[in-house]
Order: sequence, then structure tokens, then C-alpha cells
Amino acid sequence: MLNSHQLQKLKSIVGQEHVLDQEADLWVYGYDATAMTRHLPAAVVSPANAEEISAILRFANEEGLKIVPRGSGTGLSGGSVALQESIVLSLLRLNQILEIDRANMVATLQPGVITAQLHQTVENLGLFYPPDPGSMKICTVGGNVAENAGGLRGLKYGVTRDYVMGLEVVLPEGEVMWTGSKCPKDVAGYDLKQLLVGSEGTLGVITKILVKLLPRPASKSTLLAVFPDMESAAATVAAIIAAPIIPATLEFLDQVTLRCVEDFAHIGLPVDAGAILLMESDGHPAVTAEEAEQMARLARQQGASQVTLAQTPQEALQLASARRMAFPALARMRPTTVLEDVSVPRSRLVEMVGAVRAISQKCGLTIGTFGHAGDGNLHPTLLLDERNPEEVKQMEWAFEQICLKALELGGTLTGEHGVGLLKRDFLERFTQPAALEVMRRVRQCMDPRQVMNPGKLFSNHPRREGQLPQTPEQCLPILEGLKP
Amino acid sequence: MLNSHQLQKLKSIVGQEHVLDQEADLWVYGYDATAMTRHLPAAVVSPANAEEISAILRFANEEGLKIVPRGSGTGLSGGSVALQESIVLSLLRLNQILEIDRANMVATLQPGVITAQLHQTVENLGLFYPPDPGSMKICTVGGNVAENAGGLRGLKYGVTRDYVMGLEVVLPEGEVMWTGSKCPKDVAGYDLKQLLVGSEGTLGVITKILVKLLPRPASKSTLLAVFPDMESAAATVAAIIAAPIIPATLEFLDQVTLRCVEDFAHIGLPVDAGAILLMESDGHPAVTAEEAEQMARLARQQGASQVTLAQTPQEALQLASARRMAFPALARMRPTTVLEDVSVPRSRLVEMVGAVRAISQKCGLTIGTFGHAGDGNLHPTLLLDERNPEEVKQMEWAFEQICLKALELGGTLTGEHGVGLLKRDFLERFTQPAALEVMRRVRQCMDPRQVMNPGKLFSNHPRREGQLPQTPEQCLPILEGLKP
Repeated sequence: MLNSHQLQKLKSIVGQEHVLDQEADLWVYGYDATAMTRHLPAAVVSPANAEEISAILRFANEEGLKIVPRGSGTGLSGGSVALQESIVLSLLRLNQILEIDRANMVATLQPGVITAQLHQTVENLGLFYPPDPGSMKICTVGGNVAENAGGLRGLKYGVTRDYVMGLEVVLPEGEVMWTGSKCPKDVAGYDLKQLLVGSEGTLGVITKILVKLLPRPASKSTLLAVFPDMESAAATVAAIIAAPIIPATLEFLDQVTLRCVEDFAHIGLPVDAGAILLMESDGHPAVTAEEAEQMARLARQQGASQVTLAQTPQEALQLASARRMAFPALARMRPTTVLEDVSVPRSRLVEMVGAVRAISQKCGLTIGTFGHAGDGNLHPTLLLDERNPEEVKQMEWAFEQICLKALELGGTLTGEHGVGLLKRDFLERFTQPAALEVMRRVRQCMDPRQVMNPGKLFSNHPRREGQLPQTPEQCLPILEGLKP
Repeated sequence: MLNSHQLQKLKSIVGQEHVLDQEADLWVYGYDATAMTRHLPAAVVSPANAEEISAILRFANEEGLKIVPRGSGTGLSGGSVALQESIVLSLLRLNQILEIDRANMVATLQPGVITAQLHQTVENLGLFYPPDPGSMKICTVGGNVAENAGGLRGLKYGVTRDYVMGLEVVLPEGEVMWTGSKCPKDVAGYDLKQLLVGSEGTLGVITKILVKLLPRPASKSTLLAVFPDMESAAATVAAIIAAPIIPATLEFLDQVTLRCVEDFAHIGLPVDAGAILLMESDGHPAVTAEEAEQMARLARQQGASQVTLAQTPQEALQLASARRMAFPALARMRPTTVLEDVSVPRSRLVEMVGAVRAISQKCGLTIGTFGHAGDGNLHPTLLLDERNPEEVKQMEWAFEQICLKALELGGTLTGEHGVGLLKRDFLERFTQPAALEVMRRVRQCMDPRQVMNPGKLFSNHPRREGQLPQTPEQCLPILEGLKP
């Protein structure tokens, strides 16, 4: 709990009405979109600008307070949950698009701008900001930068990192730093913005963002293909890449997921199918038409029982809705939804989906899998009731098995949701010790008093020596040992 | 100088035949492609693998030796020149392409692979590695990663950074670290590879590189347009971007440069023209044909006196050769060639080129300017005789004026050549103190004994307080004060 001097000081910085310290208010900020992670913050502070944030961080350094930056709280790894009686720093008042510079195709904005609002604003000007995380209608661009959020267009267009050209950041000790420029080529010193992107609120508070924009694609073709099994869907993905076509979107739903979606939305998906693929090509009309035709042919060659090409933008939206509804449709089945986020090299997708199916059968929990077939990032979704300790144990086992399998296949613990609280222990166990040591040193040198987002990403305590796997291959005996 | 124990130890690590310590040999490694920077190394060591490099770095830490990694020595900022009697660590024996993984569209290679060799190898498989620095026929991919090298395709395809998916690095204290994966989406911890890219050999030695590949573009259209002045060329660039077209290449030569090229190569350039633009569109044949036609029309609308569209690949190569010959053509005019590398936002290109012209007139040195009109990165090339102290003084003045003007226009000190030795003092003077402090801390925490590439990028001594400009705007009075 904060003492009255501390509360008073925070109120004097941001104004009385921008500090919350009543329990009923605090609980509203006690969770994000991650299952089973709730922690009451000590206070919620909503500053108006970088100067106020600087004053808050300087005060936090003096008093030993802990600060957790927060956007809309849509994160899926617990990154904005306030451990250790931290103070939540809400960035929602910094919500202006400051400049759209068409000649240089860049936009400058504050971190609290909603991602879809940025999409809409630039698209109205014939421009395009590609990153489109699932929560884009409510999440903030600042949160996207902190987490290096991905989305459905990752294969062709990359992720948030690829669009950040500059950042204003209040460093952990309160200094305001600018890094980057409007120049697409800029190699003047270490690229600190790249270090900040994806640092999950541990290296500073983002207060201004300069993003790169593209021309809005002139047209888009959308297809949905239905497959008897996951293998034929994955073979289609491989054939498309080999064609070579790099689609804007290449998303899959497994059988469990598509049944839930159909049950929820009644959009006519065949519930006996093994998998569906959503495929989109965008760009020049001649190219999208040609690529759509090619993708349809390749899908049929690989055994698709049904391929639908949207004839209107409305039809396209309807086809895409099957994918956009995957998570809500799964989430309504059971009280608790644990969303996984491993990535594997594209060529290992079938193995990974098969492993998830086997893990589901072993532990008895329903796991629906959907995700980004083009970039190998999948979202096995574990359905349970957190009030049932047995199911929680099964979930924890399955969660770990999924992570281990992804590492075994040359993949990574998290593709786009981040490490946060959810995978902190996994990161510490499976990151190569030399890399973890560098991360620790960098964090320590930038935040010597450990003010920023404590307990997230990795702990500042060194791991015990002698029992640490160094590579995914060395982890495999551990995987064997963990099997039930 | 190394003592005999130190020399003996180095020989025992890499083998006698892979250590050079005779002065005649050492001078061969005493310079790179940067004018007026020559320093004799204490020795040249050519290890075969990461293990040997690790042993060398551990020994350097024990003995207080300094290490300068080196590829082909084509750098243009003195980054691989051995200050402080450093030991040059040549990476040229690590020259294998280890894997091309077509399903995942990635390649794994050693740092000593020549960039053009990587191009050729992947293009033969229908794939594409876009970064194409001017020295691509002799430079190494490891050097490109260390400098975050750019090239002619930066606007559409980005720079080296955008293609690095993973790195094996021997850290300054000798630990071997792996960072990255074959997953296009990977957010497990700080993205250390991004910190390493462009760190100019100060944070470790790169020993393995995982790069992303694209499908090879199916076709390419190449145009050359001749303009009465730089203003009409720049207006054409703006009109192309506004169309919107993102060309693969959009390069310019000013009058001084095109006269030198014509004088050198006799390719029929009109020497009374004010500027020429090289424009290339690549991708689907329907798109490249359409874009080429549009670009030709826009160039004529803006006053181009002549627009040539290549009808054959040979003609395309010939048109492009005007641009590729710019530097050698300028370099033969005078004994010494100082190549500048500032970047400005694309919309400020005309102002920057005009400022360079004015600076040239004021100081009396010939300065030819060419570069990347699409991404605002230009290469004013200062011609002089370094044996003439008066000309050296004029060059230093002009060099500084160009840097200051770029900063004034919202640009950056270096777009693709790096800071190295050449711009270290500028980086220290004009980087925001908070950002420079973070760079210093990061370097210090990763290389506590200051073994790696000492004296490059920035010195490890803190700057004096109270006399430091914080923003380009604050630098302007300094600029005024520096005028002759």
C-alpha cells in the first residue's frame, strides 16, 4: 500500500482526479485478458504527458515504488498485471494521432491510440498500417509496440516491430529519450528503438510513436477452403509458398475450433471437416485475381472438399469472420480459456498441431487450435474450469507439453503474445543462459532500481547453475521426464 | 605490440599459419574503404570457427587486448580499422552457406560469405535476398549485419536488419550466444539480434547468420530519366510515391556526378542535364509494365527531357550502370575521395542537395552528389588531395556543414555506412544525451573490459555536461557559429 505522502505526491503530479486508490476501482485494473492472473494494484495513475510520467518515474526511483505501464489491458501474457503492489500507469489519456506525413509516409501518434482507429484514419487517406492483432478494435498501439504484437498479416507484412521508425520513451530513471527518425535508413548508433519494441514495459514508458505507412492495397481476394484433415491444409500452405505466393493472410482452424465457431455463429461451416484455411491476397487487382485462382487450384489439388471465393467485400468479411470468431467461440464453451501462442517453423506446423491433439487426448482437456499457418504461429486454446483443481493440473501439464514440443521443433515459446507473467518461468528455463544473462544485464543497466514492471519477462535473480538446458535438443530429456 | 607469450597463445588457438605479425602483412589490414584512416594492427588472426573466436576473446579479456572484427574491409566509416594497436580478427575463413531451407524460406550462413554469392545462390533457386550494398561483389554478409548495410533496394525492401532472423554471436567475454529462430514471429524476451545488427563490432563477433528470403520477383522494368534540374527530379520522386508506387529502385545522380560518369564511361548521358533518375519496378509482369509506364509519364509531366525504358536485360544493366559507376567515376577525379552518407526525410531531399551545392561553392571543393532518392539517403562525395592541408581543412568544414544540415532537416548522420571512426565525434555531439547514455551503459554491461572495437561508434568517456545540444534545433546556433 502507498502511504499518504506517496499518494499525495502522485496526485500533485497528475491531478487528484487522475489517481485511483479505492479497492473497487483498483480491481478494474487488476487483470488483463490472460486467464487466471489477477493482482490488485496499489494505485492507478493516469498522466497526461511525458513530463508527468518522468516525474512519476523519478519519484518511484526515490521511494522504491514499482510501475506497470498499461494500455487497454488486452494483453494475453499478464504483462500489464500489477505484481508486487505496483502502481498501474495508464496511458489512455495520451490518445492523439499527432501527425500524418503523407510525403514521407509516416504517422506520429501517442501510445493510447486504438489500433483500429489508426487503421481507419490512414486508410481514409489511401495509406495502410498493416499490424492487425486480434484485439485491434480495443488494444492500443503503445501496447502493440511494448509487446511487438503480430496479427493475421504477419507473413507478408511483418509485425509491429517492422513499422516502428521512432519512439519517445521515458526511461526507467525518468529521462525522456528520443530514438529514431523519419529516414528509412538510419544507422547512427545502436538502434535503441529496436531494443524497446517488445520489451514488455520493462525498459521504459513509450510516450510517442513514429510509424511507417504503406500505400493501401488496391484490391483483395478472400477464399475459404475446407479440408478433410489438417495434413491436407498444411500441404496446401506449403504448395502456396512454393508457388511462390506470399498471401496477405493464411489462417487455419482445426476441427475442434471450427465446430465451436459453427455452433456459435451458424455460418455454414461443415462440422465434419478436419480443418479450414482462410486465404487472402492483396495488392494489384491483376495479381490478387491470379493468386486467388492459383490458391484455389492448389487447395483442390491437395484435397479440399470445398473452396469459396468471396464475390463481394461483404462475403469476404463473412468468410474472415470464421477466423476472427475462433477465440470468442472457444471461450464460451467453458468458464476458463487459456490461450497458447507458440510458433514453429512453417514446415513443422502439422507436427505441432498433431502434438497438440495428442496432448489433448492424454490430459482429457478440450484444446481447439487455430492460428497463422503462413508464419507458423498457432494458438492452442485450452478449455477448463479454473475452480476444478484437477483440470488446472491437467492444463498446466498440457501447457508445458505444448511449449516443450514447440522448442523441440525449432520453434519459440511465444510468437506474438509475449512472455509477461505467463511464460516467465519457461523463458528462464529454456533461454540459452548466455542470452538470458545479456537480457538481465541490459535490464539492470537501464533500470538499476528495478522500478519497471517487476516480475515480468524474467526475474532479476540469477538461475541456479548446473541444471540448465542450453539448447532445445538438451531440453528433450526434460520433456521425457515430464511426461505423465 | 604483442609480447611473445601473447603471440604464441594466439598461434596455439588458430594455428601458426593463421596469425600475421609482420609489418608488411599488417599494412594490408591497416585500412578499409574510408579515406584518410590508416592504423597498423598489432596482429591479424584468422580463426576457423566460433570456438576459436571464443578462446581469443577470453584471452583478450585476460590480457587487456583489443579486438577488431573484419570482413572484406569495404566499410566506409573506418569501422574495421585497428585503433589502439588492436588485433584484427578476420572472419574470411568462415565463408560457407550452411543451409538453404526452401520450405521456411530462410538461409543459414557464416559471416564471411560474400553478399553477391548469397544473391546468386538463392536466385538460382528462385529465391531473393534483397540487401544490395554498393560493394556487394566483395563485401561480406557478416560486415553487412554489423553495419546494417543498405543498398539500392532500401525503399521497397528495407535494409539488412529486416532480413536477419537469427544470429550466433561470440559475446565480448567469450560466451557463445544464439538469438532468434526460423519463426517469423518470435517475441520470447528482448530481441538481442536487433541490438547486435548495426552495432559495428562493438558488442560481439557474429559467427552465424539466419536470414529471411523472399520469392525472386518475376520481372523487372528499368527506366532512366534526364531532368533539367534536381528540383524536377525530386518532384518526380514525390509524384511517384503519391501515385502511389513504391519502386524497387529510385536513384539519382546530380550534374557533377553525371558529368563524371559520362566522362569515365561514355554511355551517352547528356552532360548539360541537371540530374538523372534511375527507376526500377519489380514484381508481377503486369504490375511492372504498368508502373514503368506510370513512372515515365510522371517524369515527363515534371519536365524530364528524355525517358528511356530498357527493352532487354542488357539495356537495363547498362542504364543501371550509370548509377553503379557514380562512385568510381568520381573517385578517379582527384587523389582523395571522402564519401558522405547523410539521410534526410524524402520530402527534404531537394533542400539537402541544394545545401550541398552551396557548401561546395563556399569551400571551393568539388562535391558530386548521388544516392537513394526514394529513401532520402544521399552520398555527397568530396574530392580533394589529402596532401594539401588547405583542402583538408575545406573538406572538414564541408563535411561538418553537410552533417549539420541533415540534422536540421530532421535527418540522420548516417543512413547506411555507419558511424565507426569517421562520425564518432558527430554522434557524441549530436545524439540526445539520454540516448547516448543508454548506448554507453549497454556497451559497458556487455563488454566490461572494453575489448571490442575500441574507439569506434562512441568513446567510453562521458561527455562534458552543460555544452551539449539536445536536439537538432539546438544545434543550429552551433551551425551558425561554425560558418567561415
